[in-house]
Amino acid sequence: MSTPQRTLHLNAFLMSTGHHEASWRLPETDPYASSKIEHYKKLARTAERGKLDSIFFADSPVLFGEVGRRPAGKLEPTVLLTAIAGATERIGLIATASTTYNEPFNLARRFASIDWVSGGRAGWNVVTTAGPDAARNFGIEDQPAHAARYERAAEFIEVAQKLWDSWEDDAILADKSEGVWGDSTRIRTIDHEGKHFKVRGPLNVPRTPQGHPLIVQAGSSEDGKNLAARYAEAVFTAHQTLADAQAFYTDLKARTAAVGRDPESIKILPGIVPVIGSTEAEALELEQELDNLIKPEYARIQLAKTLRVDAEELPLDRQLPEDLPSEDEIEGAKSRYTLIVELARREQLTVRQLIGRLGGGRGHRTFTGTPEQVADAIQDWFYAGAADGFNIMPPVLPSGLESFVDHVVPILQARGLFRTEYTGRTLREHYGLERPANRYAGTAGPALTSIGSGF
Amino acid sequence: MSTPQRTLHLNAFLMSTGHHEASWRLPETDPYASSKIEHYKKLARTAERGKLDSIFFADSPVLFGEVGRRPAGKLEPTVLLTAIAGATERIGLIATASTTYNEPFNLARRFASIDWVSGGRAGWNVVTTAGPDAARNFGIEDQPAHAARYERAAEFIEVAQKLWDSWEDDAILADKSEGVWGDSTRIRTIDHEGKHFKVRGPLNVPRTPQGHPLIVQAGSSEDGKNLAARYAEAVFTAHQTLADAQAFYTDLKARTAAVGRDPESIKILPGIVPVIGSTEAEALELEQELDNLIKPEYARIQLAKTLRVDAEELPLDRQLPEDLPSEDEIEGAKSRYTLIVELARREQLTVRQLIGRLGGGRGHRTFTGTPEQVADAIQDWFYAGAADGFNIMPPVLPSGLESFVDHVVPILQARGLFRTEYTGRTLREHYGLERPANRYAGTAGPALTSIGSGF
Repeated sequence: MSTPQRTLHLNAFLMSTGHHEASWRLPETDPYASSKIEHYKKLARTAERGKLDSIFFADSPVLFGEVGRRPAGKLEPTVLLTAIAGATERIGLIATASTTYNEPFNLARRFASIDWVSGGRAGWNVVTTAGPDAARNFGIEDQPAHAARYERAAEFIEVAQKLWDSWEDDAILADKSEGVWGDSTRIRTIDHEGKHFKVRGPLNVPRTPQGHPLIVQAGSSEDGKNLAARYAEAVFTAHQTLADAQAFYTDLKARTAAVGRDPESIKILPGIVPVIGSTEAEALELEQELDNLIKPEYARIQLAKTLRVDAEELPLDRQLPEDLPSEDEIEGAKSRYTLIVELARREQLTVRQLIGRLGGGRGHRTFTGTPEQVADAIQDWFYAGAADGFNIMPPVLPSGLESFVDHVVPILQARGLFRTEYTGRTLREHYGLERPANRYAGTAGPALTSIGSGF
Repeated sequence: MSTPQRTLHLNAFLMSTGHHEASWRLPETDPYASSKIEHYKKLARTAERGKLDSIFFADSPVLFGEVGRRPAGKLEPTVLLTAIAGATERIGLIATASTTYNEPFNLARRFASIDWVSGGRAGWNVVTTAGPDAARNFGIEDQPAHAARYERAAEFIEVAQKLWDSWEDDAILADKSEGVWGDSTRIRTIDHEGKHFKVRGPLNVPRTPQGHPLIVQAGSSEDGKNLAARYAEAVFTAHQTLADAQAFYTDLKARTAAVGRDPESIKILPGIVPVIGSTEAEALELEQELDNLIKPEYARIQLAKTLRVDAEELPLDRQLPEDLPSEDEIEGAKSRYTLIVELARREQLTVRQLIGRLGGGRGHRTFTGTPEQVADAIQDWFYAGAADGFNIMPPVLPSGLESFVDHVVPILQARGLFRTEYTGRTLREHYGLERPANRYAGTAGPALTSIGSGF
């Protein structure tokens, strides 16, 4: 008997009209698409047609960047994914939500509700939300420190998971003849008391199809990697080189093992921007067309904010200044900062060139070429120990996702690298992850006392 | 020319298997329905078939009441209504959310997103969330005082409405040739600084189809009525007698006028529990069947909590004790407290009888009879100056809603009291309410500066 071939996990990272900042300027693009639910439903159905594991939306509770530059503003991701749930049947649905600017009871409940509504397809990308601008939407003058945000995030996840376990799977008796609906010995307060949170529980939603919605994480700082090792079941990450991706993969799997978890229980998906053409020349032409539509004056302002310098310090046709701050001085988005600076230094890029590279996918690896070439690149990284799968970031939507699904996926399927049909129903099943046991099941404890007023 | 006849507004107040606490015990009922999205989609489509203005879900962020007594736990309402949006086309969608346990930026954004996803059908029932048990899910040992909660609620609504106005309707230029997506002179920070909140804005969602999602309110305390007069566009209320309903209606319209608003801009909908049979005897039989299925030992515990006494102080076959606290001593759900005590005293009910009355609909008026009798009762209250419409609370779901839609609505339509087709697309249009002007439109102000990091 042969060992079954290891196969890829593929997530579609969706963003308004596409990851390339100039995507909205193409003739084919609807520049109002980002507020239209039908746009997103169509994208999700396309991804589902390609048998992808999941779709995903990034998020931050702030209006991000220059509004002139590209579609700004985003429908709130838990709302967006709930709306998409009804338009799809199998594909997983991963929404980003901040542990810094939410309360665990509310967020645990929303994800539990999405898990019910979607039949077990909910995932939560845990972010700590960098930046003082988001803080100012919540009455905070400057963002909490990086380490404090991650400490809160860890406790937040703990509280959420306790709440998701506060009902046992069989806590609903529904005994009509005796008139007993729920079993008060199998629904428990969690009585959490920690440094950041004090939460009594139980949750007011029964345990969900997946037990726990999937935990996803995307920060690659030291704090981020440690959080991922402890809690994450899927990790989205950004690397420009195979060597960096391999190092990250090896490191995170080792950290995961070091905290006593099976390294197979965390799936690592680097982001890739596939720029696809029917010939290599056609792909390069699309990339060039997009890059030509970038307005460097907008992008330079954003780059300057990221680098903590004034825009005037970044002449377009010169390389980055020598005296940038070190990562240790940065309180938010540390790993993204380092990635950008290292990319510029390594390839000796001018500011204009750097903007072009970042404009296409914010520092993620771009593969430009034919479907065959893109599939080769995916296979190479997969076999080279750099990935359990990929976070696909189409530069233009919907066309870039359609190209990937219609032309790259069939090649990966033909090579036995990707599923040809869904075998599972839940997001956990797609990623080959177990349904978690209930931490409280079988434990003795006092019956739940009456809470609240019923009239 | 004749004046067009004034017509009713009808909202379906949906609750798991129905408002009667024993509804889940009927042979027809699925006792697991409360976690099933298909149950709610079916209910919403039934209400839409009846051309109702809206559906509505109550909520509190706490596991409410005895879990043995009736289906406990609820899918989070903004998730639930978003899922329903995709299964319906016209009916309004009103979700309850707490101003005490949310942040304005997050909640304003979720309702804006639902308004986009539903094509302008979102409404927000603003509650301040009474009770120490909810507080304990948010790290607070005892609930905030009643007056402080309402003060925060008023400022919360102000902040939300400012955020909803932070984009002008035509702020998106989408100028592909010039490469300018949003107009930074028509997207503004709100720079709110108040007693409870400091929020910079702008919102990261464009202005929505309704401009502002509808504001709904349901508390009937002095603080609640003043909040409603200032902000509410629809009010759900509970009255046992026509005289009480008339007094409330007159009072709230006067308070609304007193703050400079058109009294027509607030729609008052008392709750009614229609127990419908094809004959009066059949309706009474259904009511009796349901009441017989109530387990008084559960209900008495809840009643005791509401009245702030021990359950032992409430023998089932005696009237309420004389020495209950006054409403002034109650910090939450004041008007519900008074309603219950006054009902018991006025009708000299024993605890057992009171439990029966409350078990059917928590203090709302029950009309038991034929469709004709229920329609008559609705018409009487409507013509008597007690209501602009009604909040329909079916005792059993789905059957009670189906009876109302299939048998009561056609009578109201035949009498010219209710629409036979939707004439509008948005929730505001159903309720005959104007789309609010943008408070910032046309105001001068500095262009929005760049926020956040775009890479």
